[in-house]
Amino acid sequence: MTDNDYPFNPALLPAGFVDLLPPDAQAEARNLARLMQLFHVCGYERVKPALFEFEESLLSGSGEVVAEQAFRVMDPDSHRTMVVRPDITPQISRLASTRLINASRPLRLSYAGPCVLLKGGHSVTRREIVQAGIELIGPDSPGADAEIVAIGLEALTELGIEHLSFDLTLPLLTPLIVEKAGYDEKDKKRLLKALDRKDAAAVEQVGGHAASILTTLLHAAGEVDDAFRLVSAVELPIEGKQMLARLKETVQAIRRLVPHIHLTLDPVEFRGWKYHTGFSFSIYSLGYKDELGRGGRYVSNNEESACGLTLRPDILNEIIPSPPREKKLFLPFHTPVEQAREFRRQGIITVMALKEGAEEDQAFQANCSHILQDGAIHPLKTK
Amino acid sequence: MTDNDYPFNPALLPAGFVDLLPPDAQAEARNLARLMQLFHVCGYERVKPALFEFEESLLSGSGEVVAEQAFRVMDPDSHRTMVVRPDITPQISRLASTRLINASRPLRLSYAGPCVLLKGGHSVTRREIVQAGIELIGPDSPGADAEIVAIGLEALTELGIEHLSFDLTLPLLTPLIVEKAGYDEKDKKRLLKALDRKDAAAVEQVGGHAASILTTLLHAAGEVDDAFRLVSAVELPIEGKQMLARLKETVQAIRRLVPHIHLTLDPVEFRGWKYHTGFSFSIYSLGYKDELGRGGRYVSNNEESACGLTLRPDILNEIIPSPPREKKLFLPFHTPVEQAREFRRQGIITVMALKEGAEEDQAFQANCSHILQDGAIHPLKTK
Repeated sequence: MTDNDYPFNPALLPAGFVDLLPPDAQAEARNLARLMQLFHVCGYERVKPALFEFEESLLSGSGEVVAEQAFRVMDPDSHRTMVVRPDITPQISRLASTRLINASRPLRLSYAGPCVLLKGGHSVTRREIVQAGIELIGPDSPGADAEIVAIGLEALTELGIEHLSFDLTLPLLTPLIVEKAGYDEKDKKRLLKALDRKDAAAVEQVGGHAASILTTLLHAAGEVDDAFRLVSAVELPIEGKQMLARLKETVQAIRRLVPHIHLTLDPVEFRGWKYHTGFSFSIYSLGYKDELGRGGRYVSNNEESACGLTLRPDILNEIIPSPPREKKLFLPFHTPVEQAREFRRQGIITVMALKEGAEEDQAFQANCSHILQDGAIHPLKTK
Repeated sequence: MTDNDYPFNPALLPAGFVDLLPPDAQAEARNLARLMQLFHVCGYERVKPALFEFEESLLSGSGEVVAEQAFRVMDPDSHRTMVVRPDITPQISRLASTRLINASRPLRLSYAGPCVLLKGGHSVTRREIVQAGIELIGPDSPGADAEIVAIGLEALTELGIEHLSFDLTLPLLTPLIVEKAGYDEKDKKRLLKALDRKDAAAVEQVGGHAASILTTLLHAAGEVDDAFRLVSAVELPIEGKQMLARLKETVQAIRRLVPHIHLTLDPVEFRGWKYHTGFSFSIYSLGYKDELGRGGRYVSNNEESACGLTLRPDILNEIIPSPPREKKLFLPFHTPVEQAREFRRQGIITVMALKEGAEEDQAFQANCSHILQDGAIHPLKTK
């Protein structure tokens, strides 16, 4: 059953899609431009992958894991299936392994643009989202990890966002422990579910001989140094020890660049990460529930190691304070065009009269704050 | 038959879609930002309509005429058909007649974003396009027409594009004459086809009693003043005379704002205009075949009159000269982070070393033009 029989309201949009009105659209664009400018001056060169691509392109690389989130359309030209991109990072991997395969490494790329999700995430109802991010392709080192995190902090700080927390995870650690412990499929499923819910009692109950390791890890989540101390008491498989040792180096390298960063670690968090193979992080601002961005280390197409960061300008827009209202100047009908242009060059918003007379009325209609009278700018008196 | 059996090349994109690489993606974004800044200081407030909307929304207003160009997808949430927008102007009409219906008029709105076409136009192979534009909603006056055209000229001039020509048309004039002449359907079709091809001989042959009017109009195309003079010799229906009189007023109003604008008139051009009901215009730059933008007067939803302009930043990108290469500064490993940040605040592109040692080599790898040595910026010597 659909609602198609009811009178249609043209203002209605599909769930998860929005029209941004003034001043929100301008604010989002301005914040996005500031992010991209910072990425630019950090040496990340901009690329702009296509909005649609062949399904096979998406499936052929790291995009395979996001393919279930993609809208599919038939290409009437090639008769192949196309997808509307659900994520830009896999497209960057595609570029790095094809047209940019011979570009020198480290390859630093930035991007921004809309993505469309078939269904919003479990905590997010948006289906048209905006991503703005960077990818550092080639080097696999704590220094490269740190550069990405430090730029994330610098970018959000420059936008005026405070009380930032970078929540680190090792998405492969828990699956590794569970795998090594050799559960049968049914127990494994129950256990992963319990871990995902952070339900220590249930983990204890179904965890068998790995229960004590897993519950210790579960309780270790918190401030990164405390978490490292608690986790160090746990007997991990050798690969798990290596993951943890690398993460400690990454944390040191991050602190070398941004000593005051607030870092937490949740060693059992493993859900929601699609292609990440090394450390991952989510960025939060205290008091705001939605994730502002995320990133981490992954294996790009062609088995290249890469580390990236994706911010969400659409979400940032909701927490960045609005700038003060700009001056908006009404120009009477006979204002010389050169003078008008000069105001605009100075960044003053001008509204040109469309007709002679009733100029104060026209200025009010246009929501102007000022009016040009006798060659001088005057505040518009409220009536 | 499809090509699905052949090995798939992941670098392949569907026809009409492109990945922009450095430096093109950055150039397009910069040009787009400059356009939007100009629209902003001309008092046009930014909106950002959704990328997808219900098909019924598009069909319920002025978007009906572009609906055939839209990709359709099923919304798994509502089970309604959604479209990927093929054009932003109808979305602005929708906003003006719904959420902005009580905003005071004249309503000045600007927008920018991607659109996707099912098939590229007859001369254009792009299917993912970028639109950036303005709409002036409410007033139906030569002054409003002129503001739109003048901003179009100012915007393109600011981007460094020269030898601009605004080619005016009256898309309803030819259909009016043909309608009034009362041809049967078959002759009408042949005649419109001949007019569309600008084939004067064929028009003469099939044009019957309106042939002389139509061939005179056909030959009148050119410099706007010459065209007006030639057209004034023609006996037009009264509605045609009114269209022409209004266009003359519009031209006067345009010249009041931008006296040196180059205007042409093609009085029989009527194809390719979708929702325009008054004058329309296409913008060209001498020596470049693609249209840089277009606009004109149309009836918005709720029967409101509106005039708009849509530029194509993706096309502009191809003719705007590239800016000189920016300075790119390599920062050795122990550069204090505060110093790095200060360079970036000054707009200098910095690349931070990811490791100690071999710093000149690292700088070359990163395509840097300069390197920080002993606290000073030095040009990087080519090897």
